[in-house]
Amino acid sequence: MFTVIGERINTTLKKVKAAVADRDASYITEDVKQQEEAGATYIDVNAGARIGHETEDMCWLLEVVQAATNLPLCLDSPDPAVLEMACGRVEQRPMINSISLEKDRFEPMMAFLKGHSCRIVALCMDDSGMPKDVDEVVSRAKTLVAELEGIGYLRDDIFIDPLIQPLSVATGNGVMAMQSVERIMSELPGVHTTGGLSNISFGLPQRRMVNRTFLAAMMAIGFDSAIMDPLDRELMAVLTTATALKGGDRFCMNYLKGTRSGKIVA
Amino acid sequence: MFTVIGERINTTLKKVKAAVADRDASYITEDVKQQEEAGATYIDVNAGARIGHETEDMCWLLEVVQAATNLPLCLDSPDPAVLEMACGRVEQRPMINSISLEKDRFEPMMAFLKGHSCRIVALCMDDSGMPKDVDEVVSRAKTLVAELEGIGYLRDDIFIDPLIQPLSVATGNGVMAMQSVERIMSELPGVHTTGGLSNISFGLPQRRMVNRTFLAAMMAIGFDSAIMDPLDRELMAVLTTATALKGGDRFCMNYLKGTRSGKIVA
Repeated sequence: MFTVIGERINTTLKKVKAAVADRDASYITEDVKQQEEAGATYIDVNAGARIGHETEDMCWLLEVVQAATNLPLCLDSPDPAVLEMACGRVEQRPMINSISLEKDRFEPMMAFLKGHSCRIVALCMDDSGMPKDVDEVVSRAKTLVAELEGIGYLRDDIFIDPLIQPLSVATGNGVMAMQSVERIMSELPGVHTTGGLSNISFGLPQRRMVNRTFLAAMMAIGFDSAIMDPLDRELMAVLTTATALKGGDRFCMNYLKGTRSGKIVA
Repeated sequence: MFTVIGERINTTLKKVKAAVADRDASYITEDVKQQEEAGATYIDVNAGARIGHETEDMCWLLEVVQAATNLPLCLDSPDPAVLEMACGRVEQRPMINSISLEKDRFEPMMAFLKGHSCRIVALCMDDSGMPKDVDEVVSRAKTLVAELEGIGYLRDDIFIDPLIQPLSVATGNGVMAMQSVERIMSELPGVHTTGGLSNISFGLPQRRMVNRTFLAAMMAIGFDSAIMDPLDRELMAVLTTATALKGGDRFCMNYLKGTRSGKIVA
């Protein structure tokens, strides 16, 4: 099944930042309920935008979000101290977003992960910066998987993020993402792939069209998770339809349900 | 580039059949002009529905269609006599739709093809019926390509149709089509793949959603032509977007043009 990491509870978004600053629980509650209703598998929670307040903001968000949903959370922080606190408060086994091969991030995060049981988003980033080609993505993915397996993590718990780069920046960035996913899924069987879906459309008009067409294309290649907006109705309709096309919807039951409820419209 | 075979001038469609019976040239002209404007690469012409009238209907259609457009035609008939007549009247090198491995079709069509220069749609069908699995599709594709190469056809002139079967009939039919295309494109480098795109959605509601999601998925795998309706605006928007995602649109120029003209809407 495809893992939808709902990206909306992120303090880098203006409205969320304001809601967190004002301790406006009803805004957060409503948003989380909508994400769950729309089909999110995990709710990403990022409290990093108000500098100096991450711990208290994360703490408050965890309480409000978990009062609104029973979905597991994706704890989005680079700070092991924040994650340590958060892991003590989550009701379900969480996903952590994220580890990378950047030295400053890798070492503290590995130390943290050793003591916990969670799933993990692993970014194909290192201190030399964004990957320049598919080989670099795949080689970083292999290093990350080897390291995480070395401390006891299962491939099923690892979500490799190949770092989707905007099509507006280079004409080959869509192909690079697709080829990266194809190779990761075939050369590292058992791992998952994920990533910030809408990165692909940065700088282009009518972004949602690019996002949903990219989702269908990436799913055909093997992409089985995305960090995305479940409230984009057309995007979720494509997810349901592509899942059926990939053979993951017996008798097209979910597709048919979607058409009957008006969520899937031609 | 993706080859769009515009499927609308087909006498199995009620309105087209009536227009042909009434010799209503303006209906045909208008439809063909719209298909060209929307981005068709070939105009498929099928005059087979009025039994006993195919030759005269095809003859009339060729005149009307070629007065409306300079696009090359895809001559859609199983009858070598009709094709012989048609090939004498086309202004551009045509595509023929189609040959298959069914004995009654294969032998007369091979005899016809030997004497002509055209492109050809080759169906993975034989006398035992529809292919049961991907291996069967690929093995039929290889036979067709070997036979056509044997009489001098180039791979670039061959469009293999793996026979897209409805998802409503079997949950695995989407996967079967995708895996077939993937294997044909990698095991027979240089050939094209095509097929009746909307076959996938037969029997389902909101068919256009299935068609366009399937197009994006199939293009990711390597599908580089379809027999389809260019007047489905959302479908053509997905085609333009998926082409950009596959790296086939420098600086996203066509995508941007589509958004500016209102053809691509999020």
